[in-house]
Amino acid sequence: MKTRLAASALILGFAATAGSAQDLGITLPDAVGQIAPKLEAYAQDDLFGSVWTDEALSMRDRALVTVAAKITRHETGGLSEHIALALDAGVTPAEISETITHLAFYTGWGNAVVAAEAAAPVFEERGVCEDDLPALEPELLPLDQESEDARQENVQSTYGDVSQGVVDNTEQLLFLDLWLRPALEPRDRSLVTVAALIAAGQPEQMTFHLNRAMDNGLTQVEAGAMLSHLAFYAGWPRVFSAMPVAADVFESRSE
Amino acid sequence: MKTRLAASALILGFAATAGSAQDLGITLPDAVGQIAPKLEAYAQDDLFGSVWTDEALSMRDRALVTVAAKITRHETGGLSEHIALALDAGVTPAEISETITHLAFYTGWGNAVVAAEAAAPVFEERGVCEDDLPALEPELLPLDQESEDARQENVQSTYGDVSQGVVDNTEQLLFLDLWLRPALEPRDRSLVTVAALIAAGQPEQMTFHLNRAMDNGLTQVEAGAMLSHLAFYAGWPRVFSAMPVAADVFESRSE
Amino acid sequence: MKTRLAASALILGFAATAGSAQDLGITLPDAVGQIAPKLEAYAQDDLFGSVWTDEALSMRDRALVTVAAKITRHETGGLSEHIALALDAGVTPAEISETITHLAFYTGWGNAVVAAEAAAPVFEERGVCEDDLPALEPELLPLDQESEDARQENVQSTYGDVSQGVVDNTEQLLFLDLWLRPALEPRDRSLVTVAALIAAGQPEQMTFHLNRAMDNGLTQVEAGAMLSHLAFYAGWPRVFSAMPVAADVFESRSE
Repeated sequence: MKTRLAASALILGFAATAGSAQDLGITLPDAVGQIAPKLEAYAQDDLFGSVWTDEALSMRDRALVTVAAKITRHETGGLSEHIALALDAGVTPAEISETITHLAFYTGWGNAVVAAEAAAPVFEERGVCEDDLPALEPELLPLDQESEDARQENVQSTYGDVSQGVVDNTEQLLFLDLWLRPALEPRDRSLVTVAALIAAGQPEQMTFHLNRAMDNGLTQVEAGAMLSHLAFYAGWPRVFSAMPVAADVFESRSE
Repeated sequence: MKTRLAASALILGFAATAGSAQDLGITLPDAVGQIAPKLEAYAQDDLFGSVWTDEALSMRDRALVTVAAKITRHETGGLSEHIALALDAGVTPAEISETITHLAFYTGWGNAVVAAEAAAPVFEERGVCEDDLPALEPELLPLDQESEDARQENVQSTYGDVSQGVVDNTEQLLFLDLWLRPALEPRDRSLVTVAALIAAGQPEQMTFHLNRAMDNGLTQVEAGAMLSHLAFYAGWPRVFSAMPVAADVFESRSE
Repeated sequence: MKTRLAASALILGFAATAGSAQDLGITLPDAVGQIAPKLEAYAQDDLFGSVWTDEALSMRDRALVTVAAKITRHETGGLSEHIALALDAGVTPAEISETITHLAFYTGWGNAVVAAEAAAPVFEERGVCEDDLPALEPELLPLDQESEDARQENVQSTYGDVSQGVVDNTEQLLFLDLWLRPALEPRDRSLVTVAALIAAGQPEQMTFHLNRAMDNGLTQVEAGAMLSHLAFYAGWPRVFSAMPVAADVFESRSE
């Protein structure tokens, strides 16, 4: 395992070291080893030693998914360390910033606020400046008008009488703005959205977003590896509740 | 928008200013603008600038609903600020106190404990004294005996064999005591209960409580606006999981 | 009530005092009484005064279940106090340690990390040393090979194509290792797992684990009392969503 890591470090430079057990160790406070030595061993041997290094999902994606899960779960402890790890693994400061903005809408404002507070010292330490952050009003990505029309018509007819405010904000803020901002690739936006739904225990909202993720380029292998990765960070039961939805989506797309 | 705010401030006095983007700004730490400038813009322009000022739900109700959502989500950051904001918007200290007590039962003891800790410095700063708090043993509101008998009979026959303790405590502590305490209007008690269920991701428990809320005076327009408001504070997916339940309740009541 | 407590203290010695309203009071910060006097009264009179002392579930089990619920809910406030209370009630340091390790897998790594941090000062104060903790590589409990083969075959055939990583880790790390570690009795491991599922709002994962808990020795009376206990710590709605699952499990086992 060490050989493979060393080899990829040669290719990818410093960033690749982010996935080494040593670097991941910054997310494991001393108390874990003192109180639960076997948990530390599971972390070093299994989570860091074989899950994070499994190439079915890149370290960069794993780091991004882990940050998304921690933000969703409002876990402030170790969040700065995981953001630092994501930066080391090749996630850009702009992508971290945009992930926080995205998850404000998908997991609640308060989660994004504490995420911004966790990112602040890391960005400062690394000299991230305003120019490194996403533009306020960038040129938006092209819209798939037909698909958006279908989505909006469906939501309008189903929920217009329930809450026109939700329907309007979903269109204006999310699908005609947030999702079209170029600071986070659509595939990555979908990746953190699906990770958030799994971590929040909302498999009932996953069908649309996992399909969208795969339309946006996420492979089935990557999705499967994300489930395996999130079992550790969101707990096994969250993942087992998501598995039937993933199975249905995978099957429907193979037909 | 500023004109409308100014006008309502003239009518409602100091309390109305609680909904201004400036006052709401106390809930937005500097880190948000530093790390995610667009998120700050969404907050100022959309969340504070048009959601909070939408008169479909009063600022007072929005403030109460937001406090309920934050307590449910165990979000301690900014909770003191949101409690202060609720007081400015016309929620009384007794109503804050009783909301905390109510949500101990509906979202778990630990949430109420941190909410009390967040309220303490705010109450102290404002000179809230013991007389401003709900009485320990007040004269209770009149009970709708028939409706309570039906509820209790249903729960007893369904779950008496599963956990008589749950059945008994639900009757004795919740429906014959907590819900009859006058410190929080039944309509407001229902409002925070429904907000808590949406924020906790428990739409499966919402039918009973949304009906009860509407029996207690919550209008359909207010319920729809609450969903739109909570999309920001609990995340879009929580609200989209609650929408079908709201649709069913609205439809069943219009028949 | 006081008489009964005094009597059981005579029989059980120091440990029994852990369930007294006075000892439980360490979990109730002063802010609760200052902000919500009635909530303090509900705690003293009902939660501490009659729920914790109800012998349908031992104080030791109640303390363990409460710690599991708080870890699951990522409630760091009062967690050290609840761990101390559990130790006073007869839970061993090794059992606390192993519960934390177990819940890393069943509720997410980040919860276990903060639990270890909460346990550290308590263990230090009480002079818990390395020898008191679970062995890293103990002799494992005997495996029920037939039952495990059936479980694994079922999961492999259902989810092998979705995420082989999840399937493999579930077998290798959970069922062939974690569940067989002797530091926590299978019955207690099941107890904290079911408590975690209720507290996390995952009744859909409860059928397997409640059956396993009862196979491992948890009685129906104890399970019913756990539901009643958790209503306070996880909120009434979480328990009402779990009740139909418990009802089905109880009924299926009585046939």
